[in-house]
Amino acid sequence: MVIFVSDKQQDSRTRLLDSALRVVRAKGYSATRIDDLCSDAGVTKGSFFHHFRSKDDLMLSAVGHWDTMTGNLFAQAPYHHLDDPLERLLAYLEFRKDLLVGDLPNFTCFAGMITQEAYETRPEIVAACERSISGHAATLEADIREAMSLYGIQAEWSAEGLALHTQAVLQGAFILAKAKGGAAIAAESIDHLVRYLKLLFSTHNQT
Amino acid sequence: MVIFVSDKQQDSRTRLLDSALRVVRAKGYSATRIDDLCSDAGVTKGSFFHHFRSKDDLMLSAVGHWDTMTGNLFAQAPYHHLDDPLERLLAYLEFRKDLLVGDLPNFTCFAGMITQEAYETRPEIVAACERSISGHAATLEADIREAMSLYGIQAEWSAEGLALHTQAVLQGAFILAKAKGGAAIAAESIDHLVRYLKLLFSTHNQT
Repeated sequence: MVIFVSDKQQDSRTRLLDSALRVVRAKGYSATRIDDLCSDAGVTKGSFFHHFRSKDDLMLSAVGHWDTMTGNLFAQAPYHHLDDPLERLLAYLEFRKDLLVGDLPNFTCFAGMITQEAYETRPEIVAACERSISGHAATLEADIREAMSLYGIQAEWSAEGLALHTQAVLQGAFILAKAKGGAAIAAESIDHLVRYLKLLFSTHNQT
Repeated sequence: MVIFVSDKQQDSRTRLLDSALRVVRAKGYSATRIDDLCSDAGVTKGSFFHHFRSKDDLMLSAVGHWDTMTGNLFAQAPYHHLDDPLERLLAYLEFRKDLLVGDLPNFTCFAGMITQEAYETRPEIVAACERSISGHAATLEADIREAMSLYGIQAEWSAEGLALHTQAVLQGAFILAKAKGGAAIAAESIDHLVRYLKLLFSTHNQT
């Protein structure tokens, strides 16, 4: 148990966690070495092993760090303030499009990257990634349920399943963006998802 | 230039390419070592270097091997025989669902796995993956165009973009399947995609 962490120590720990998000998103989980993380964070290897037992130990903390950072980002985003739950969902997806800026490592998903690569080899870390992805999806479920009720949707699909589907589309959009070397194709997939939600909740398609 | 390849040599080369598809889909690109490939293929390291200069050299050939194998699989699939182009698209997606059997490395995408992980570090190999993914998407474009014409769809989206979107959904569905440890969630995302296509081409939504 850590009783006391000095500011400087805390700072190097956070810098290493930030570096994990940056380096893994650029070169993948397995290719990321402790030396890469120390170099990116500007800390010594001694400092690394002061804070973490191993690369995997750091990565498990980094998934928590990612979850906290992205959780705050989405909690504070403006889409929550709209009155209509469907409008909130659509504005959430517009917000996701707005995040597609800068280089690919800047907007792609740390948890999705690790899941893709390490699902068989790092089950504990991927379980944490799953909780992060599903936890984020769960923040959309209440809006989906409210929209289903408001628009009178009797569906064969569930709010949970639709929320997870939005995350599948985003994860796949990132892969296409990596293949094509740019965000445009990811934005186009989000547009298709927006179009799907509008059709799904349109009065024409109520049953 | 290879003038003559004996059956036995050809066989060990093919075994190594098959092993690449298997091992990379299980543990990722970077974590796959030449020793893993030789062990999985049951060939010696000498045999490996007889056929390939390096791991990256083998992987570039393995992307071609993947493209040929999946290309044949889809070319011979029964969905092409349906008369209605929209029915062909929907049957293609049912076929993709039918492929979600066995362990995760068995049904996930070799090209998507490498793209996710190595888009910055192995541009030449990822370019081959991109050609494979986009080439497969292109096989759906004629059906989408024909369906747009048959159903009188004047769209703000393109046949090419919608074809690529289907691949984004599939790639993302694989990531969710890896996170959840099973194919069910991937099948659910494909169902959402089927529902989207039906809504998109429904007479209610023609403009």
